Amino acid sequence: MTKVAIIGAPGYAGIELTRLILGHPELQLTMVTSAAEAGKRVDDVYPILSGHTDLSYVEPDVAAIAKAAEIAFLGVPHTAALKLAPALLAAGLTVIDASADYRLKDPEVYEAWYGVPHTSSHLLASAVYGLPELSREGLAGASLVACPGCYPTASLLAAVPAIEAGLVAGDKIIVDAKSGVSGAGRSPGAGTHYPTVNESLQPYRVGSHRHTPEIEQGLALAAGRVLRVVFTPHLVPMTRGLLSTVYMDASTEISSAELVQIYRERYADEPFVRVHDAGRMPSTAEVRGTNRAHIGVSVDPAGTIVAVCAIDNLVKGTAGQAVQCANLVLGIDETSGLDHPVPVV
Amino acid sequence: MTKVAIIGAPGYAGIELTRLILGHPELQLTMVTSAAEAGKRVDDVYPILSGHTDLSYVEPDVAAIAKAAEIAFLGVPHTAALKLAPALLAAGLTVIDASADYRLKDPEVYEAWYGVPHTSSHLLASAVYGLPELSREGLAGASLVACPGCYPTASLLAAVPAIEAGLVAGDKIIVDAKSGVSGAGRSPGAGTHYPTVNESLQPYRVGSHRHTPEIEQGLALAAGRVLRVVFTPHLVPMTRGLLSTVYMDASTEISSAELVQIYRERYADEPFVRVHDAGRMPSTAEVRGTNRAHIGVSVDPAGTIVAVCAIDNLVKGTAGQAVQCANLVLGIDETSGLDHPVPVV
Amino acid sequence: MTKVAIIGAPGYAGIELTRLILGHPELQLTMVTSAAEAGKRVDDVYPILSGHTDLSYVEPDVAAIAKAAEIAFLGVPHTAALKLAPALLAAGLTVIDASADYRLKDPEVYEAWYGVPHTSSHLLASAVYGLPELSREGLAGASLVACPGCYPTASLLAAVPAIEAGLVAGDKIIVDAKSGVSGAGRSPGAGTHYPTVNESLQPYRVGSHRHTPEIEQGLALAAGRVLRVVFTPHLVPMTRGLLSTVYMDASTEISSAELVQIYRERYADEPFVRVHDAGRMPSTAEVRGTNRAHIGVSVDPAGTIVAVCAIDNLVKGTAGQAVQCANLVLGIDETSGLDHPVPVV
Amino acid sequence: MTKVAIIGAPGYAGIELTRLILGHPELQLTMVTSAAEAGKRVDDVYPILSGHTDLSYVEPDVAAIAKAAEIAFLGVPHTAALKLAPALLAAGLTVIDASADYRLKDPEVYEAWYGVPHTSSHLLASAVYGLPELSREGLAGASLVACPGCYPTASLLAAVPAIEAGLVAGDKIIVDAKSGVSGAGRSPGAGTHYPTVNESLQPYRVGSHRHTPEIEQGLALAAGRVLRVVFTPHLVPMTRGLLSTVYMDASTEISSAELVQIYRERYADEPFVRVHDAGRMPSTAEVRGTNRAHIGVSVDPAGTIVAVCAIDNLVKGTAGQAVQCANLVLGIDETSGLDHPVPVV
Repeated sequence: MTKVAIIGAPGYAGIELTRLILGHPELQLTMVTSAAEAGKRVDDVYPILSGHTDLSYVEPDVAAIAKAAEIAFLGVPHTAALKLAPALLAAGLTVIDASADYRLKDPEVYEAWYGVPHTSSHLLASAVYGLPELSREGLAGASLVACPGCYPTASLLAAVPAIEAGLVAGDKIIVDAKSGVSGAGRSPGAGTHYPTVNESLQPYRVGSHRHTPEIEQGLALAAGRVLRVVFTPHLVPMTRGLLSTVYMDASTEISSAELVQIYRERYADEPFVRVHDAGRMPSTAEVRGTNRAHIGVSVDPAGTIVAVCAIDNLVKGTAGQAVQCANLVLGIDETSGLDHPVPVV
Repeated sequence: MTKVAIIGAPGYAGIELTRLILGHPELQLTMVTSAAEAGKRVDDVYPILSGHTDLSYVEPDVAAIAKAAEIAFLGVPHTAALKLAPALLAAGLTVIDASADYRLKDPEVYEAWYGVPHTSSHLLASAVYGLPELSREGLAGASLVACPGCYPTASLLAAVPAIEAGLVAGDKIIVDAKSGVSGAGRSPGAGTHYPTVNESLQPYRVGSHRHTPEIEQGLALAAGRVLRVVFTPHLVPMTRGLLSTVYMDASTEISSAELVQIYRERYADEPFVRVHDAGRMPSTAEVRGTNRAHIGVSVDPAGTIVAVCAIDNLVKGTAGQAVQCANLVLGIDETSGLDHPVPVV
Repeated sequence: MTKVAIIGAPGYAGIELTRLILGHPELQLTMVTSAAEAGKRVDDVYPILSGHTDLSYVEPDVAAIAKAAEIAFLGVPHTAALKLAPALLAAGLTVIDASADYRLKDPEVYEAWYGVPHTSSHLLASAVYGLPELSREGLAGASLVACPGCYPTASLLAAVPAIEAGLVAGDKIIVDAKSGVSGAGRSPGAGTHYPTVNESLQPYRVGSHRHTPEIEQGLALAAGRVLRVVFTPHLVPMTRGLLSTVYMDASTEISSAELVQIYRERYADEPFVRVHDAGRMPSTAEVRGTNRAHIGVSVDPAGTIVAVCAIDNLVKGTAGQAVQCANLVLGIDETSGLDHPVPVV
Repeated sequence: MTKVAIIGAPGYAGIELTRLILGHPELQLTMVTSAAEAGKRVDDVYPILSGHTDLSYVEPDVAAIAKAAEIAFLGVPHTAALKLAPALLAAGLTVIDASADYRLKDPEVYEAWYGVPHTSSHLLASAVYGLPELSREGLAGASLVACPGCYPTASLLAAVPAIEAGLVAGDKIIVDAKSGVSGAGRSPGAGTHYPTVNESLQPYRVGSHRHTPEIEQGLALAAGRVLRVVFTPHLVPMTRGLLSTVYMDASTEISSAELVQIYRERYADEPFVRVHDAGRMPSTAEVRGTNRAHIGVSVDPAGTIVAVCAIDNLVKGTAGQAVQCANLVLGIDETSGLDHPVPVV
């Protein structure tokens, strides 16, 4: 059993990590930190975890974390990891970071999009981008993993097989993405107030969402050239779920059935990916609560590839992927702790 | 007061027509027909209309309709209007058809997409497509109005100003559209079962939705050339609301602010259209229950125009637009019966 | 046209008042005040009202309000009206108060439940409780109307006919009530955060909700004796709607059909009340957006009367009732501005 | 590993059983039957189970079931088990019946409420009512378990400790219960159509719900006397979750804190029950996806005990309880297969 601490534990990333690690056969949760909830039992803040843990939240303290754990999962907001990660690494821990702070390889891009200087950019070279289906190789033994954002996860999983196969013409793709409200986190605000969000659909941060450069970084890696993304996220009246509908100009004539075949070959060994038969598209409900990514692809008569990927934004989009990465870092079964069947409706 | 009958009255199109006409100062509802609900009072089937009408549903009968009304609104499913419209026209009524049967000018296209022969194609030439913001001129005095589908309404309102202004390059546009569940009608089925739809988002009929040729017909009119649409509808867990996110390649460099200006000029005299300031995007909630279309536009650094239009699928997308068309047919104030403020949340 | 100002206008009570008054044929909205939103146009904060008003929110100022309006509707939180109402009355306005400050006749009860001294208790004697179906007589010409809370409205409408008819035995009744989230107001918080409330049902403030003494005050008036209420409110994952299920011990044997008859006689002249046939129960959806109260009653074999009342918490439960009261104060048609048909689903 | 078949497997009871048994360390799912879905893979009908099973639905056949399994779980509608259970028992299987057919000990009561003769009433004496917290003793080695209905489960868990402690006066209690829509099953209908149910709350089958005699049977066992229930179920716009709010006249003065203590003692050894501190009430969200029952209790100043129990209607209310019973029948750990942490929001 590897000892694990979760930093920033009561947020949605943190609490999903909590429930996943509590159910993980090879990880042992020894510490959960939170300045805001310090002193409270986890199962008083989240009674659904009654019977699963006696832990209480404690104030975050690097020395104490280092004593309690070998791996630290960071469920903190971006910028908080800029300081935390170096300290935890220095204290000898492996860091699985669910924040945005080490995802972008170029610190100038980070600074342009996040509006703050990247104060630990020396770590960027060694940080491994944790999207195993696209970059599994670097993860074994990594000390710092930068887990992808939820939108980049679904968008890249939908786009990359076509790009790698040379099927995408031109220099841009379109990603029309839709997310449930939990993607906005646990802190209440005007934009997540129930009567505002319920029975409403709305695009937001059109042309300015911070996941844009992260998607483009992934596209460039797959394409071997610069590929721009036109990225339009939408907020959907549901708690969980994220769906990316990706439009790419086909460079050649290809049928939907052939495209399905290409995607299936690309993901043949992936335990968490399913590519649907031609004509079937995934729903977010069919991956809810799981670490899975379900994909449907189609070619339009106009020569446009439509590739759709559905994930659970808090699992494959955040906490589940972090655990998947930790499994790979540790060299244990990649699906460990992520393979329990979940409620169906 | 002009006397009005609604045919196919208890469906969602029909019941929205019912409430709008009951609140209309210049239309008088004299008959509501339904084979399935014949004999039942409207306010027993829909108690929310208690106090507004003593009408009961009656079996549809052309002679009786002709006696009772000058205008017939058709809330029937497609193909049903193929027979009904000619009979009602022959009986001297004006027909405002909310079905799909007279929208497509080319009967072969109709037959290809709807799978049945068009048995009254002689009416297609005189049928006026009822999207007043794009084709108001033909409506005055028209005897047969083909009201647009919900997706074409939002999609064309979003796309046309840029197309008309010559700002769209290439031969296709992308429409990623999202609709609430009421768009599927009043009849229950596996796809609208609450536990299936709730907390789930899913594309459907990708590449095969029947609104595709209707959108393309409208695009061609605006562009003066063939413009294909890559059309992907999604089902959203909410009852009402429809949002079309339209992607078009810009033919020239233009700023978001300039684009806003072009859209505002195009719709300057439209009582139901609002074009938001640059940087603001509409939500479906902000048009819920209204006949309005709210539009936001943006130009992406990659040179893609993103135009978003939100409507209420049952009002501007169906029944409200039908009333708007009837007002224009009658030569009365276009907003009559459509300008009452509605609940805000 | 009577000139009207709304104080505390962008909250949910205020914005419902805004849309109702904008649609009212005999009231003219001249001023909307808000410290928080001062300077913003109403239709920028609530774009759904585009086309209905050019007003902007202004800082509240009694002298300015008195200049602009004859009637002031208060959409402020409780305690704020303790100061505002006397000042507005002194300035010659009629005050229709949607807050809780003048509902309870006994200032000690107010202080016990609201935790603050009642600083304008001299007004309590003349304040008229604005539940027209139960106390219409005092409203004509009243200068200060205390509009009821949403729970008391539905609960009293459900309970009073049986009580007045002498059908209720014992000294207590049970009210199990359920409300949509908009009842908690426009300010976001942990308890109204979408992912918390969605897909969850929960009782709250069991035994301690502030509407308890208000319900008991109304019960005592109807019964002519002290009647306690066991009041359990629940939060329901929907925006609007409130349903009170009231349980009362029957003092005599009576059938459901007889009970329906008694309720129908009691409400025979009420334009907003419908009593369903025996065996039918109201849904909140069937009154959504309306000022109506729909009631179903049943007698259980165990001798318990079950009376259910559904209202829209923001209309009959708040703003609509305030307008109804204003109509009665002014001596105009009670349904004026409240009788437009609303969306059905 | 004990071999298990699920009969009526694609319904909501069946599919919850499927996912629970697939995750159960000591049960092996060998057969899933369905006339309607025969031939289809489980993970094509429910793609969320991709990776968990290669089973396909097969036509139900007693001989084949007997060959494949030692235990048969019945997810069939009531009346279907009247024939199936005797046949399966005769073939040597243990039957865990999630239907209503063997819950009521008196066949005349069954016939009065279900409207059909009970054709295998000879089994009623040996059928064990499967609510372990109240009747664990008979389950070990039982051959036929009648799993309780969802409403009786929550209602009895809320009521029984007070009754057993002699705290309940009089001869009736009130149960105001609220259920998510999945309680109505997987078959679509007018009453579960998304636009009908969404944003709506409604009582249904007031005074006539078939769970009434089952609740009364359980109350009588606990009280040692006849206790009537006034039972009012409500449909809530959410997929899962059930909450029973139970009102009982207190026979003596008691504080909320004392009542909590009594409930805690009653359930001290129960792995799935949590009794909240005085002043805290459970939400359905905090048990969603789990086999847990969370309870809050309070005594009103009027001398009424308010006891609230929240469960997941498909888990503790149906499939989870069936697995819990199977564990007890087999003599293995009662929580086996039911103790995996689930998604928190």
